This record gives sequence, C-alpha cells and structure tokens, in this order.
Amino acid sequence: MKEFELINRYFKGRGIARRDVNLGIGDDCALVTVPENCQLAITTDTLVAGVHFFDDMPARALGHRVLAVNLSDLAAMGAEPTWVSVALTLPNIDVEWLEEFTEGMHEIAEYFNVQIIGGDTTQGPLSITICAKGTVPEGKALRRSGAKVGDWIYVTGPLGDAGLAIEARKQGIVIPDEHLNYLTTRFYYPTPRVAAGQALRGGASSAIDISDGLLADLGHILSQSQVSAVIHVDKIPVSDALSCSLPRAQQFDYILNYGDDYELLYTVPENNKSMLEMKLRQYGVEVTCIGQIKSGEGQIDILLDGDKFNYRASGFEHFTKELV
Amino acid sequence: MKEFELINRYFKGRGIARRDVNLGIGDDCALVTVPENCQLAITTDTLVAGVHFFDDMPARALGHRVLAVNLSDLAAMGAEPTWVSVALTLPNIDVEWLEEFTEGMHEIAEYFNVQIIGGDTTQGPLSITICAKGTVPEGKALRRSGAKVGDWIYVTGPLGDAGLAIEARKQGIVIPDEHLNYLTTRFYYPTPRVAAGQALRGGASSAIDISDGLLADLGHILSQSQVSAVIHVDKIPVSDALSCSLPRAQQFDYILNYGDDYELLYTVPENNKSMLEMKLRQYGVEVTCIGQIKSGEGQIDILLDGDKFNYRASGFEHFTKELV
Repeated sequence: MKEFELINRYFKGRGIARRDVNLGIGDDCALVTVPENCQLAITTDTLVAGVHFFDDMPARALGHRVLAVNLSDLAAMGAEPTWVSVALTLPNIDVEWLEEFTEGMHEIAEYFNVQIIGGDTTQGPLSITICAKGTVPEGKALRRSGAKVGDWIYVTGPLGDAGLAIEARKQGIVIPDEHLNYLTTRFYYPTPRVAAGQALRGGASSAIDISDGLLADLGHILSQSQVSAVIHVDKIPVSDALSCSLPRAQQFDYILNYGDDYELLYTVPENNKSMLEMKLRQYGVEVTCIGQIKSGEGQIDILLDGDKFNYRASGFEHFTKELV
Repeated sequence: MKEFELINRYFKGRGIARRDVNLGIGDDCALVTVPENCQLAITTDTLVAGVHFFDDMPARALGHRVLAVNLSDLAAMGAEPTWVSVALTLPNIDVEWLEEFTEGMHEIAEYFNVQIIGGDTTQGPLSITICAKGTVPEGKALRRSGAKVGDWIYVTGPLGDAGLAIEARKQGIVIPDEHLNYLTTRFYYPTPRVAAGQALRGGASSAIDISDGLLADLGHILSQSQVSAVIHVDKIPVSDALSCSLPRAQQFDYILNYGDDYELLYTVPENNKSMLEMKLRQYGVEVTCIGQIKSGEGQIDILLDGDKFNYRASGFEHFTKELV
C-alpha cells in the first residue's frame, strides 16, 4: 500500500469535519482559522514502541492513548482541543492493525470534537508523534507558574492505576481479573480531563497534567511558581483496584511517582475554593483537595495520617520519557 | 542527562524570540497568537534514520534538513513560517551530536525567523518529527487544486541534484569533488523557497513543493485540478554538476523522478505571466517555464527537443516516503 492509499483509506474523509478547518488532509499544509480573541495552544508528544508501551499493546488502545496524552496537555492549559497532526512511523503495513489503531484514534477524536488535519506516514520502527492544537480565550490559559502561598492543591481523580497495570505485567504481580481489567483500562484508555481543564479557567491559579508522577509534576508547579507545598498522602484518591491489590506500604510509589493516569493537578486560591468545587462537581469532575501551597523553594512536605512521612522512592524503573 | 536538562541546554532560551509567542518552551503547551485576518497553515514531516537519510549524515545537516523540508511545505502554500514543534527520538545522548544537530536547526530557524516553541524528547531509534506552523492572509493560500487549462508550469530551480548525491553514494558513481560537494550540499542543506512561495500569492494558480519527484508532484496538481499537462524536459533547469556527471540519457530519472531538492512547482495563468515573472526575479527567484496545463485527466505528455519522449522510469529505489 502506498502512503497515498493509506491516508485515503484510514484518515481522509473519516472522523469529524470542523467548520474552522478550511483545508484538511491532501495538500502541502492544512489551513485552519483560529477564533478572534483566542490564543492557540500547541503541544507535541511521541510514543515509541518498547519505551512508552509494550510491543503487543492492542492497536485500538494505542490509537486512543497517543491522542489522549496529547489532549491531556491541552486540558492542563484549559484549552479546547481542535486539530491534530499525526506522524505515524510503521515497520510494515498491517491492515488489521491499522484499522484498529485508526479506529481508536478516530473514536477519541470524535468524542472531543477534534479533527485530524494532516500528518505523515513513514517506514521505520513503530513510533507515533502527535502535534495537538487547541484554542483558549486570550489571557485565560492555565500555567504552571501561578501558584501562590495558601492556595489549595487538588487532583481530578485516583492516581497510580496505570502504573500498577504496567508493573503487574513487568513484575508478575498477581491481581484478580476484575481489578486488573480496570487498571489496564486506565493505562490503555486514559481520559484527558478536557472539561475539567476548561472549567478551571478563571478559578485555578495553576495546573499541570500528571504524566511524570505527582511529586515530579507538583515539583514543576513549585519551581515555576517559586513556592513549596505540603501534601497529605492519605487524602490522595486511590481506586479500590489499587488499594485491594497492594499492602499500603507498597502503594505509595504508584500514587506519588507514577504518572500514566493523566489526571490533572491544580491549585486554587482560598477565595475561589467553594465556587470552583461547586462548578467542577456540576461538570462531573471528581474534586479532591490533597494539600496546600507553602512559602519556600520547591520543597514538598509529605504527611501521612497527620504525621510527617519520610517517603523514599523505591526507584523501580517505569516507562519514562526521560533519556538516560 | 535528563530530558529537562537537554531541553534547557539545547532549546530553551536559544534561537529567536518572536513577539507573537506568548509562552514558549516549558509548560504543558506553548501559547501563540495568530494575526487577525490570517489563516494558520500546519504541516508535519518525519525523517527516520536509514530511511530518509544515511545513518552517518552530519548532525548539523540533519538539523537543517528536517526543518527545511517542513518549511518547504509552508512555502508551497505561500505561508510565512512562524513556529515549529520538534519531536526528537534519540538512541542515546551524544552531546557533540546534539550540539551540532541543534546548531543546524537553530541556524535555519533564525534565518527564516521561526521560533521553536516546544516538542518532546524520547529514547528510541533515531527519528525526528517536526510540526511547522505558518500564517497566510485569509483566502490567499496556494493550493494544488487551482491549475486551469492554458496555465504555464514553472519550477524555482534545478532538479535532480540531491538525488544524484544520494545515488552517487549508493551506486558508487564517480563524480569530481567540486561537483560532488555541490550535489551533497543540495541534499544536506536544501533551501525552502519561502520568499518565492509568498511572492506567488495572488499570481500563481497552484503550487506544490517537489518532494516526491517532478512527475509525481505534478501528478498531484493535475489530479486535484482535474487537468493534464505537457512538459519540455529540455527546459527543466539542470545544474552543471548534474549535466557534467552523467550522460544525458541517465539524467532523466534524476530530473523527473527525484524530489529531494525541494524546489517549488507552480502554475501561472497567461494573464499573470509577465507580472509574476518580473516580481519573482525582483525577489531573486529563478524563473523557468517548463510546460503548460492542458485539458485531460492527469496525463503528462513529455517532450524532448520538441519531440514526444517515451520516458520510462528506470525504477531505482531512492529514499522514499512511500511505505511498501
């Protein structure tokens, strides 16, 4: 199959057609119109086989996940996702795999009203790079740098699920099927918190998506906002699947250091707290306050059941975006 | 070196800072502002080691070329390049290589006033995907679909040089150093025809960049415009390096079927011919008319010294974007 046929069969004319796309797939560039008084938010993420996912990950899940991790970055800025470019490097043409992969991608794209406007298909080791674009009203984007002393720290959902799905397989941890199915779904089909991100605009002081782990990503907010934080580990939401599968002492690494669930982490000034909690619940967003911003230089104090908790990461290797 | 350090050292704070970039590298997304009454043009191209370039290609050349091939797509739309996202997949951290690679990329970015606004660095087989963005006044973009019967067909420069550089190495063709240096530079450091593309706006009826070869790319214009064409092979500009290195009969494959020089191919209505030729020459663009659009369904008639030329591609394998 030639690139041309591949694009025609799996991309062109499939998925939604947005009115702000003036020219889609099939020319040297796509042409789109950004609404007046909006800024354009742009993000890029690559997933590489064997580095970010197991080689045998179902194609449909991969198609979903690679788009989801990009939309998650837009969500973290409070942007409305609009258009994506897909660069697909494949070792060979596997029609069944491509059908499933693009199905997974089109499903989530349609759900979030996102149009695939172009891309590139090349031959090589399996890897996918997406460049996702979205719009955000001028000056309303959520940045990492806005957290102030006294602001409350929140997350949008349970942490550690995807991490346990990965480690269960790598380490051979035995988990009952019902729980394993849930955990695997959290890894395969993460939900970018797009509605939450938009609802946070005007109320939250900073936001980030948890892709590298709670401590690492909170660290980004702290360093860019030049503040410190205290977090209560026992307040962090944890799924039944995770809490039933591991003794408590073994849960902390997943909760604090695994980021593959793509929940949002955000901070809220005291004055906006009640208003924003109510608004988010109306949007169906889980609202959990897990700590508070303190003065300082990027220090994270961790409390467990009210006492200082000397957490030390066990240092297991997980899928990582870091180059070593 | 962690991803964070790598980005800080080689990307953040280097290169130009455009005023329309509201937030650059370092948050979940970049934020930019598109000027009023402009559309946004978006394109993506991937280069994979061993597929699109030799593994030992100098890093500086690779950094230049991967950005150039993307800017070339913007040029072909008549867009002004503005921002790029860079997804870099590296097998390991080679500081010297990275220094050269990013130097090559920053050089061409600065030349064209383009800002690197973000990206991703991951571990894996060497591959680079760039998503380039540019702006174009509303309704003024050059498309592939606008060629009309009677329009004249032009190219912006000599064809086949990069192809001969590649084949000289693969087939061991002996070429004098002075010529080989020129040919290799054409492959390593292609010049995207950005000024030409913008000068063509309002005058040309269609345009495309020659990435797959003259016949293939002319074919795209013909099929999207629903017309045919006649071209005069003897009018196509050829460099001294190419014409001196090969007997004439062996030149045609390079001229007609190799696209790696990234010249523009465009069509011009009779009424705009003199005006546009003069304008382009003022911009320093080489202006060569090589044929004319005819009625038909995508047929290309090739003439050589006035006679019908039954060209048959020799079918050598070159670097290709096609998946087979």
